[in-house]
Amino acid sequence: MSRPTPVSGFPELLPAQRMAEQQILDELRRVFELHGFAGVETRAVETVEQLGSKGEVEKEVYVLRRLHADPGAEAADPSSTLGLHFDLTVPFARYVLEHAGRLEFPFRRYQIQKAWRGERPQEGRFREFTQADIDVVGRDELPFHHDVEVARVMAEALGSLTFLPRLRIQVNNRRLLQGFYAGIGVDDPTAAMRVVDKLDKLSPHRVAQALVDEVGLSARQADQCLELAAVRSTDTSFVDAVKRLGVEHDLLEQGLAELRTVVEGCAGAQTDRLTIEADLSVARGLDYYTGTVFETRMSGFEGLGSICSGGRYDSLASDGRTTYPGVGISLGVSRLLVPLFQRGLVTGSRSVPSAVLVALPDEGSRPECDAVAQALRARGVAAEVAASAQKYGKQIRYAERRGIPFVWFPPSGEAGHEVKDIRSGEQVEADLDSWMPPHADLRPQVTVEEELS
Amino acid sequence: MSRPTPVSGFPELLPAQRMAEQQILDELRRVFELHGFAGVETRAVETVEQLGSKGEVEKEVYVLRRLHADPGAEAADPSSTLGLHFDLTVPFARYVLEHAGRLEFPFRRYQIQKAWRGERPQEGRFREFTQADIDVVGRDELPFHHDVEVARVMAEALGSLTFLPRLRIQVNNRRLLQGFYAGIGVDDPTAAMRVVDKLDKLSPHRVAQALVDEVGLSARQADQCLELAAVRSTDTSFVDAVKRLGVEHDLLEQGLAELRTVVEGCAGAQTDRLTIEADLSVARGLDYYTGTVFETRMSGFEGLGSICSGGRYDSLASDGRTTYPGVGISLGVSRLLVPLFQRGLVTGSRSVPSAVLVALPDEGSRPECDAVAQALRARGVAAEVAASAQKYGKQIRYAERRGIPFVWFPPSGEAGHEVKDIRSGEQVEADLDSWMPPHADLRPQVTVEEELS
Repeated sequence: MSRPTPVSGFPELLPAQRMAEQQILDELRRVFELHGFAGVETRAVETVEQLGSKGEVEKEVYVLRRLHADPGAEAADPSSTLGLHFDLTVPFARYVLEHAGRLEFPFRRYQIQKAWRGERPQEGRFREFTQADIDVVGRDELPFHHDVEVARVMAEALGSLTFLPRLRIQVNNRRLLQGFYAGIGVDDPTAAMRVVDKLDKLSPHRVAQALVDEVGLSARQADQCLELAAVRSTDTSFVDAVKRLGVEHDLLEQGLAELRTVVEGCAGAQTDRLTIEADLSVARGLDYYTGTVFETRMSGFEGLGSICSGGRYDSLASDGRTTYPGVGISLGVSRLLVPLFQRGLVTGSRSVPSAVLVALPDEGSRPECDAVAQALRARGVAAEVAASAQKYGKQIRYAERRGIPFVWFPPSGEAGHEVKDIRSGEQVEADLDSWMPPHADLRPQVTVEEELS
Repeated sequence: MSRPTPVSGFPELLPAQRMAEQQILDELRRVFELHGFAGVETRAVETVEQLGSKGEVEKEVYVLRRLHADPGAEAADPSSTLGLHFDLTVPFARYVLEHAGRLEFPFRRYQIQKAWRGERPQEGRFREFTQADIDVVGRDELPFHHDVEVARVMAEALGSLTFLPRLRIQVNNRRLLQGFYAGIGVDDPTAAMRVVDKLDKLSPHRVAQALVDEVGLSARQADQCLELAAVRSTDTSFVDAVKRLGVEHDLLEQGLAELRTVVEGCAGAQTDRLTIEADLSVARGLDYYTGTVFETRMSGFEGLGSICSGGRYDSLASDGRTTYPGVGISLGVSRLLVPLFQRGLVTGSRSVPSAVLVALPDEGSRPECDAVAQALRARGVAAEVAASAQKYGKQIRYAERRGIPFVWFPPSGEAGHEVKDIRSGEQVEADLDSWMPPHADLRPQVTVEEELS
């Protein structure tokens, strides 16, 4: 077989990069679990009928067919044709409905899985990608404090990834927008929101023009929409800024109060690299959001768009009798990490988990060297024995190429056990029954190749 | 939307079961990493050409098609048509070839991922299933001691899953079989192996008959094959048992020596629930194994077949110039666990990660209760605050239904912080700055509903 070539849109990581990704996924999981979110996995496939139930991206779905199945057999029936899921929200909604009788509500879950879309690949957009979602779903009702909770948990999770470029979590509230638009007399607030949502791609002037041309607003109304969209603050001063615009509406009041609660509730999760702010330009084009909405920008990577988005939906799922409201946020793990890997900005500190390479003086000593490695493993220190009894210089280079920080030398002649830090070159006597590497060397770390903004 | 129904062959776990699965995957990963195996993930898809490269199960492959792609467009070219991988060996072989220039050999990797097969579901056989593979691959050569290593590492990993029914890892060596068959004058040893491999499904009498009818052996030769297949031992006594059969051949000698080395090398990994034995009836029908072969039986679940199999392949991959020999074992995680879940024999001790529910006296106290939870989380104790300020009895039942072992009561009147173990009912004063649950309650545990054999 000749050397295979990559498949466009299906990024694959080298071992050191995968070490970094694994540390990051572990960290996300750690934070989610500390907050009581249960890890759930759904099957990779849904029926095409289910995948189309939100009326979205149907054309990008990969459908499955058995290689030797009757051609065209699957095309007939969307209730039995299977496609790969394109996000984790649709499968989760289906999971909730299917298993509702055996779940406890409110149900907090996180889900870290791959998803697939048959779309054209570009930076940060792949055909196979990993998502990390958190959602809280209720039966019939879901108190508002869960909006604050999911924002704070995701902020805490992102804040723990200290190697990331600066992040800005932007929060808004669709009730606030709807109330404001209704208050200034806009007939179709949803259509106006969809246009305002383009502010990150179009100039304010062109957005104003589109509001006039496409949604039928007056020039004055369009200006007011843009004035509202210009409001942002990392504290609750946005409330006064909105009030100064002089528009009154019950929904606006309710939305302002909710947004204030989220911003206040998340204040403690801010760090010098992570801000959480009210940003009234955020609208989220998707119709199913009904209250709080989230987006997240990464400094220096604005072209990726939002890397972490979500919001409140009054009906995540419904079986006709019971409605399940939810609130959640979805982190695009691949969208975030793969560009950092591809630009060589971030990687893992080593390509193997081993903290120690046990040197092998000769092949006959393998059992003794295995016993040394086993003693280290019993204390949680990952260790491997050299693959062959080459000269020690070659064995040290073997460790170096993999990023293994320590080489262990079994007793020889008068000398007892010794361990060498191959970065400093320092070699010292060591007690096999108690020696531990420094905590930072115990596991591979995420390393930043270059200071990020 | 009406209530969705399960999709046959795509098992999904409830939260408590998923907690148990997650603990098990963590444990496997822990052991693999302690031995220096690097975690690798490959994309879910390969070209159909790649998937057919081992000449295997091609008909069971799920191929992908974009929902609105030109029908039939994908059928034409197997080098660009994508299919879901049906195991983790074919993708790993392709990964090694594709990235060889950036990997260090010998390369130890573990890979825990889903795979898909469009076959008819039955107990332990699914259309979507999780595998956990370990392999060591060399460039041009791979010393034999890695055969011992992979066996020992997988034995240690399986041995750490103490809730499992009794396991029997069976080891054999195809060189041994080939040498023996050649030594008794069998013309086509590979054909004979394929027939002997059916001994777990057919009676010895019928296997002997098939050896005569299908492979052209004499009755005497067929008897000798069965005599060899009857040899098994958990120590090295199998060597003498084979020698007593009086057959001589160089390959037989080499195979015996290798098998003895594996059995000796794994002796330390045996437990009272896990045996590792030479079993000369194991042949593995697959042609690419060239030396050591492994299978594993689970007591009381013999109908599942082997739940963990593998062996040595002199050519895992080759690009024409360089050959990559390997040795590995693949654990069928779903094959093993899903039947245990489905029969209700094993589950998780709770359906959420939370060790503590912080009770909520009234909605106004939420910030104080959040602060209590946050203090616990800072020490690694997963905690959640009650969703609503119901009567304490209801809040305790909320915890009970989820299996949360502790309920925390914030100060009230004269009383300070108190914590209740809801299993014993014992409620004691607790110091928010230092209280920890017992170690066994910190994380959800795998619980065995019924003593397994």
